Amino acid sequence: MSLRPTLDFLLHQWLGVESLRLRERFADHSRETFDAVLDTCERIAREKYAPFNRLVDTQEPHFDGERVILPQATHDAQKAYAGSGMLSAAQDYEVGGMQLPYTVEASANAFFAMASVSIGSGMLTTGNANLLMKHGTEAQQRVFALNEFSGRFSGTMCLSEPQAGSSLSDVMTRALPDGDGFENDPLGPRYRLRGNKMWISAGEHELTENIIHLVLAKIPDEHGKLVPGVKGISLFIVPKKLVDTEGQLTGERNDVALAGLNHKCGWRGTTNTLLNFGEGKYPVRGEAGAVGYLVGQPGRGLQCMFHMMNEARIGVGMAATMLGMAGYHASLDYAKNRPQGRPVSTGGKDAAAPQVRIIEHADVKRMLLAQKSYCEGALALELYCARLVDEQHTGDAQAADDARLLLEVLTPIAKSWPSEWCLEANSLAIQVHGGYGYTRDFPVEQYWRDNRLNMIHEGTHGIQGMDLLGRKVLMENGKGLQLLAGRINATIERGIQVPELAAHANALGQALAQVGAATKAAWATGSPGDALANAVPYLQAFGHTVLAWIWLDVALAAQASAESPARTGRLGAMRYFFHYELPKIGAWLQVVSARDQTCASLPEAAF
Amino acid sequence: MSLRPTLDFLLHQWLGVESLRLRERFADHSRETFDAVLDTCERIAREKYAPFNRLVDTQEPHFDGERVILPQATHDAQKAYAGSGMLSAAQDYEVGGMQLPYTVEASANAFFAMASVSIGSGMLTTGNANLLMKHGTEAQQRVFALNEFSGRFSGTMCLSEPQAGSSLSDVMTRALPDGDGFENDPLGPRYRLRGNKMWISAGEHELTENIIHLVLAKIPDEHGKLVPGVKGISLFIVPKKLVDTEGQLTGERNDVALAGLNHKCGWRGTTNTLLNFGEGKYPVRGEAGAVGYLVGQPGRGLQCMFHMMNEARIGVGMAATMLGMAGYHASLDYAKNRPQGRPVSTGGKDAAAPQVRIIEHADVKRMLLAQKSYCEGALALELYCARLVDEQHTGDAQAADDARLLLEVLTPIAKSWPSEWCLEANSLAIQVHGGYGYTRDFPVEQYWRDNRLNMIHEGTHGIQGMDLLGRKVLMENGKGLQLLAGRINATIERGIQVPELAAHANALGQALAQVGAATKAAWATGSPGDALANAVPYLQAFGHTVLAWIWLDVALAAQASAESPARTGRLGAMRYFFHYELPKIGAWLQVVSARDQTCASLPEAAF
Repeated sequence: MSLRPTLDFLLHQWLGVESLRLRERFADHSRETFDAVLDTCERIAREKYAPFNRLVDTQEPHFDGERVILPQATHDAQKAYAGSGMLSAAQDYEVGGMQLPYTVEASANAFFAMASVSIGSGMLTTGNANLLMKHGTEAQQRVFALNEFSGRFSGTMCLSEPQAGSSLSDVMTRALPDGDGFENDPLGPRYRLRGNKMWISAGEHELTENIIHLVLAKIPDEHGKLVPGVKGISLFIVPKKLVDTEGQLTGERNDVALAGLNHKCGWRGTTNTLLNFGEGKYPVRGEAGAVGYLVGQPGRGLQCMFHMMNEARIGVGMAATMLGMAGYHASLDYAKNRPQGRPVSTGGKDAAAPQVRIIEHADVKRMLLAQKSYCEGALALELYCARLVDEQHTGDAQAADDARLLLEVLTPIAKSWPSEWCLEANSLAIQVHGGYGYTRDFPVEQYWRDNRLNMIHEGTHGIQGMDLLGRKVLMENGKGLQLLAGRINATIERGIQVPELAAHANALGQALAQVGAATKAAWATGSPGDALANAVPYLQAFGHTVLAWIWLDVALAAQASAESPARTGRLGAMRYFFHYELPKIGAWLQVVSARDQTCASLPEAAF
Repeated sequence: MSLRPTLDFLLHQWLGVESLRLRERFADHSRETFDAVLDTCERIAREKYAPFNRLVDTQEPHFDGERVILPQATHDAQKAYAGSGMLSAAQDYEVGGMQLPYTVEASANAFFAMASVSIGSGMLTTGNANLLMKHGTEAQQRVFALNEFSGRFSGTMCLSEPQAGSSLSDVMTRALPDGDGFENDPLGPRYRLRGNKMWISAGEHELTENIIHLVLAKIPDEHGKLVPGVKGISLFIVPKKLVDTEGQLTGERNDVALAGLNHKCGWRGTTNTLLNFGEGKYPVRGEAGAVGYLVGQPGRGLQCMFHMMNEARIGVGMAATMLGMAGYHASLDYAKNRPQGRPVSTGGKDAAAPQVRIIEHADVKRMLLAQKSYCEGALALELYCARLVDEQHTGDAQAADDARLLLEVLTPIAKSWPSEWCLEANSLAIQVHGGYGYTRDFPVEQYWRDNRLNMIHEGTHGIQGMDLLGRKVLMENGKGLQLLAGRINATIERGIQVPELAAHANALGQALAQVGAATKAAWATGSPGDALANAVPYLQAFGHTVLAWIWLDVALAAQASAESPARTGRLGAMRYFFHYELPKIGAWLQVVSARDQTCASLPEAAF
């Protein structure tokens, strides 16, 4: 079973991605070039990723005292990935890129997430280099970013610290000017950094010649004090090994040391580290302190990071989606081949009759259709958001601004919804397998373990909820929410005209009204404490409403297509979502609207 | 933090377990003897189980070619458990038992499930021996059961086969009479068994001198054919090593061979095996075939098993509950100690203020209260069911029969509800920990992995749903459901009179009416296919309604107690359940009432 037909339908019949050719930036592209990229990535994922997914789960990264050892398969896979040119897929032709639409890039990367999410493709490296292409100097781009795009170097993002996980304002890593003339280093103003960074993926390994850390740190004020809050945060390039202005290694190690590997529940193929910056293990010019080059303006580090946050969060949502999809395909295959029991619809009593394959049982079908509905719906959402990224980058001014605002509102959903529901899909995939699904002889328990990370990294569920209800639906006088409501209403209007979809269109209209009313009710007192106590139930209800909209919109495209099993399946998955899922929003919104303080007001001693 | 105050409250203030002393069987017991048992088990669990829970996760059972090797800690723990006398807690004094009420036995065993579910206490051994005390001959009891109660032997249950997981009617293990005079063996009619048994927990190990397998197999008819269906199933005692009539090992191995160890996602401390019976690896008297002794009548094997199914399912529900509780306690402890961020209720903006402990964040409180509500509610349900077991065994005729019927209806909930919602609690416990919760440095990811088994073994969610909606609510003209409704209504009537609880009592009344209406609507066409397509959503809604009832009933007891943080916490958890959880039943029941066939009718090719 291949992901490709679903992907092709969504990209072409639904999103009409080919029309991006009309944009100057993508003028050289065509359905053929898009297909070629997908073909290549599908093949590499099949040959170099999928066969080794269990291996990287069992052969975790380990530190031999000097180096972090990863399986050969990981080296081979990442080499093949870099060789595909995908690391610079979105970049200009003149720097060796493909000028590929983000929608196609994200689609192509989906194959790797599905085949082996923890071998990893290049999300961090690409993100790191993209950031430098946006905010770095010419030299920083040439020396660091271009070598990342080629696969010679890899990149990390160093935000969290042990005492400040999600609370970036509490970052304590300090950056001090590195001696006289520090401002005039050709690679950017030169500082020495000291501090600890936690949860750094790909923070240490031998996969590439060098590792380029992008590090958030604070430059102390004239009294030597760190500025409280996020305003004091600056961004630095800190290479693992020092380089010259041509990007050649000088042979000198920078003062960045591995302090520990994190041993995770899943996603074990990816090294995750605690790093010590500047503790003196590798002194530079006889002095402790990791050498770092300032990117952009001092105190503007978070703004640089925010630029890439949408894509990073869509990336996490896509990873969650593809883990869900992998489980769906595995359990569908199992259900089609495993004989067990007799269907209740025929009485289930004729014990002399042969056993049927379990896909003939209604409850197994329910578990499969739920997975299809979660995962294909989530995929559509991620692609829709990816398409908005392209619009933001290449649309006309109005369309670009609308896309920007829609992304502000949709990104918390694109990140959180698949993390929750495609994880649930993975649990259902285990359940379809019965006891076999709980063993490591089948792949589904690993998908489930791998997927549990996604509700945590790149902003937890709690943070996404507060971002949505506390910021995104309010910003610019609620214009983002209005824009989204406009898009949803446009789909509803089209749906109402199709007899088969009219009831669903009405249900969506009611759901949208409920979300709108709950948003108002939550903020009726104007108190963040009142409103945000139930930000996560709000996020859940908002997410289900968005997915119902996506499914109705996808169903309109399916409806217009010729009769086929795939069409029947898409309409069935849509119907499942409207019958089984959308009605759940009532329970979530009830506490939001009531500004329920049952949890928030319970005294600590009562737990 | 200790489980004990919650357990004591539920046993004494709520269930009034002490009153069992009035029954002749328990006349020698008192609050003091009950407490002594709980004290002992709490201590053994703390000293011999909890410290080794991670160790048994990492040092999985392995086969060295001859023996299955388990960590020394497992040997020590199980020895301490056997030494406590708990294996025969429920048995008569005259066979060395304690004549302990099942409610107290289940409570005491809860400590082990919470400390290390996969080291395991004696559930299978006790269940095996209890079955023999009920259905075995005097010799079978003396030779096998009593040696299990002492801890000298251990027991298994061999039901599933590779080609017939949940479908016992398809069992293919064959039992043939073992030569002339087979009927006159002092240990019971002697057969030779041949077949494979899958998912056999504790199927091979060196923890005890011998392993007593209870095996379902079919005796072929006069034409050598197996009788289709469950009617043909008989039950056999198949010891790993042959014994004489005094229970001494004869020195001869029986023809039972380990065919493989299952490597699981969690619950790794417990050996789980595929066993070959009678393949000839260990021929007995020169002949292939595992020697087995018939228990009870031929063809009545499943009936013997059903006798212990209620307790086994309550045991699984309790295990799920205690894994949830372990995660709740761990995440509560973490939340009280981890500083991170600033509360949104005070603006959250003063970055110069010190960070607060995360228990001060509303969303963390929500995640903690949800866990408390799931796990303490589930514990109350399991204890309620355990109390019904005692009533069934020692109540007067009417009370015993009522208890029997209530258990028929409640057991699917007692098994399924904690499996689903205390797993969700474990996921929330990870979430409270953030990234740390996803690492193996904290215990919560293991609880989550361990708990995923519980929706699968002892009857999957799907099977529980069909049992409930397809059998239990219909049986004896719906009398079980009526009895339960009567109990629920009695609680509602008491609740309505307490101002603080009246609204919840009304909500419960409405939920009960909704469940009743959905039950009728599901069966309106009389077609099992129509009704059972949504048996699992029905199970979920039924479960939430039962839990709301349990919480209201517990709240009545809490209400009557003196002001204390624990009282506030119980009422808060009850309120959480009514505000955040009970409203979910609407979405589940909607598809049940509509006899929705979206899933059941989707053709296979459309998936």
